[in-house]
Amino acid sequence: MAKVNISVTDEGDFIRSASRFDARITADGQSPWPVAADRYRLVVSLACPWASRALISRRLLGLESALSVAVADPIQDDASWRFTLDPQGRDPVLGISYLSEAYLAADPSYDGGVSVPAVVDIPSGMLVTNDYLRLTTDLATEWRAYHRPGAPDLYPRHLRAEIDAIVETIFDEVNNAVYEAGFATTQQAYSRAYHKLFARLDALSERLESQRYLVGDTITEADIRLFTTLVRFDAVYHGHFKCNRHKLSELPVLWAYARDLFQTPGFGDTVDFDHIKRHYYRVHTNINPTGVVPEGPDLSTWHTPHGRERLGGRPFGDGTPPSPIPEAVGRAYAALRD
Amino acid sequence: MAKVNISVTDEGDFIRSASRFDARITADGQSPWPVAADRYRLVVSLACPWASRALISRRLLGLESALSVAVADPIQDDASWRFTLDPQGRDPVLGISYLSEAYLAADPSYDGGVSVPAVVDIPSGMLVTNDYLRLTTDLATEWRAYHRPGAPDLYPRHLRAEIDAIVETIFDEVNNAVYEAGFATTQQAYSRAYHKLFARLDALSERLESQRYLVGDTITEADIRLFTTLVRFDAVYHGHFKCNRHKLSELPVLWAYARDLFQTPGFGDTVDFDHIKRHYYRVHTNINPTGVVPEGPDLSTWHTPHGRERLGGRPFGDGTPPSPIPEAVGRAYAALRD
Repeated sequence: MAKVNISVTDEGDFIRSASRFDARITADGQSPWPVAADRYRLVVSLACPWASRALISRRLLGLESALSVAVADPIQDDASWRFTLDPQGRDPVLGISYLSEAYLAADPSYDGGVSVPAVVDIPSGMLVTNDYLRLTTDLATEWRAYHRPGAPDLYPRHLRAEIDAIVETIFDEVNNAVYEAGFATTQQAYSRAYHKLFARLDALSERLESQRYLVGDTITEADIRLFTTLVRFDAVYHGHFKCNRHKLSELPVLWAYARDLFQTPGFGDTVDFDHIKRHYYRVHTNINPTGVVPEGPDLSTWHTPHGRERLGGRPFGDGTPPSPIPEAVGRAYAALRD
Repeated sequence: MAKVNISVTDEGDFIRSASRFDARITADGQSPWPVAADRYRLVVSLACPWASRALISRRLLGLESALSVAVADPIQDDASWRFTLDPQGRDPVLGISYLSEAYLAADPSYDGGVSVPAVVDIPSGMLVTNDYLRLTTDLATEWRAYHRPGAPDLYPRHLRAEIDAIVETIFDEVNNAVYEAGFATTQQAYSRAYHKLFARLDALSERLESQRYLVGDTITEADIRLFTTLVRFDAVYHGHFKCNRHKLSELPVLWAYARDLFQTPGFGDTVDFDHIKRHYYRVHTNINPTGVVPEGPDLSTWHTPHGRERLGGRPFGDGTPPSPIPEAVGRAYAALRD
């Protein structure tokens, strides 16, 4: 997710840039980048839904000790993501002030957008990948040697076709549709995105009315990808991106589903509503010129009972939940850094 | 309410301009402007909450045949309110294209803002008053000779002190506070307005929990003034002005109170959600540069049962309701012009 280059077509439709660095970190030696502990650093913004997927996967799988995390300031400047939250404004492990330095270490001629999530090779300081679409499934499959005991299978082989199909739909009609609505510069482009989004949310509500999770009876990659958009919905997409047919909290099935996940260790403890709100409202001056960040909505309702246990399901399948971090729920940065 | 001159202080606080033309139309000959049928034209925008007060009073009091109405285009241009919805772009009674022409007829040197509501003397084409604070109480008291049989007393003498006190609070902490929140250019100015607004809405919720109307047991001026802000709340103030602790529809007492009035003849039939949404989102390019108008929220819920009859109250006191105009409810312009 980059600050600069919000591209739109002649018809006013937002175009998301493709990831430019798509190397993979693999277990089998197929790529120059082998899975290894303490070798890579995952760079995220807690504001960014695409980066937050990786944070959730890392928590659920127990990869914290193998794959460390750098957290960028939620407010980019003209040179994009920066480590101004760290002492001396430098990431203490990579020693850089701007994420762009890792991009340039990998390709000195690179002049495209700088996005998170990004995985950086610590010894060389080079960006390995910013491929947000593949990162989480690779964490679930290639990084198995470093999973915690009891880690769930987030991408089970027998369900992959179904997961792949639904996440493709969710990408186009939910994850990216909110951006298409928010960044549209014409009424027509906005309207297309708005109707696509709410039609899909209605269909997902129907699907989730009688089943606890999206695919199978356990938490999978599909749930992670839907969650990161839902958790931002009322805080930013409803108002800032004009996705305002209803608040998420007015869609009973999806609201209970989202709270169920939020209250599951590994989900809510990766969320930081302060970073989320400040990022969207202060960075997108093209749609919020004053940079004023709304005080609302009331987010305490994320902690209310969801009642989804009645649907059964086995959240972690044959595995176990990660250790909870109660103080992090909704305010992950403070818990990471306190 | 003028398009131009959104003034803010050095601290980022919005300042509302005072009305410049404050002549009164009176029954007793005290002013040069006597109350008379067919002599004056009330110029409104259906988008504008200040003008909408006068439309509601006119309906409740049955002044339609004595005081005709001109409806401006909800989208102002650089010369402010204009009659582009009328044939040849001219108001058929005043014969002018821009409301500013009536301002200049009254004062050729005038170069301030052009606001509605405005009352124009038809014979001379001169603006008489744009004093939105006094207009409705004058309709209720000075225009009695033209009230319909069964018109309510919207400003009863024995309740005036109480009405005056509450409308002053409502002006500062509700009617104008939403603008202060939306037009604030600093976080501090916004935050002050936001907290002032929701503290007052909470206090009003408490007051209205056990009584059907704000003052006494009948509809008064005070209800009209609160209603015009509440009816715009979810459609524009919640998102566009960042008044987003809750939607009105999430505040059960005020939401039921607002629906009760909306469903009362004379209130909902003056409301036009299309004019309201297009005006705010397209005119305020300082806070919505794309001019995209949200598709949401779902406004059909304004028609749901409110249950406030159980609190008693006599909406029109010893009088009667005006004749209903069902087709106008929520889409007043189409009903006016169809």
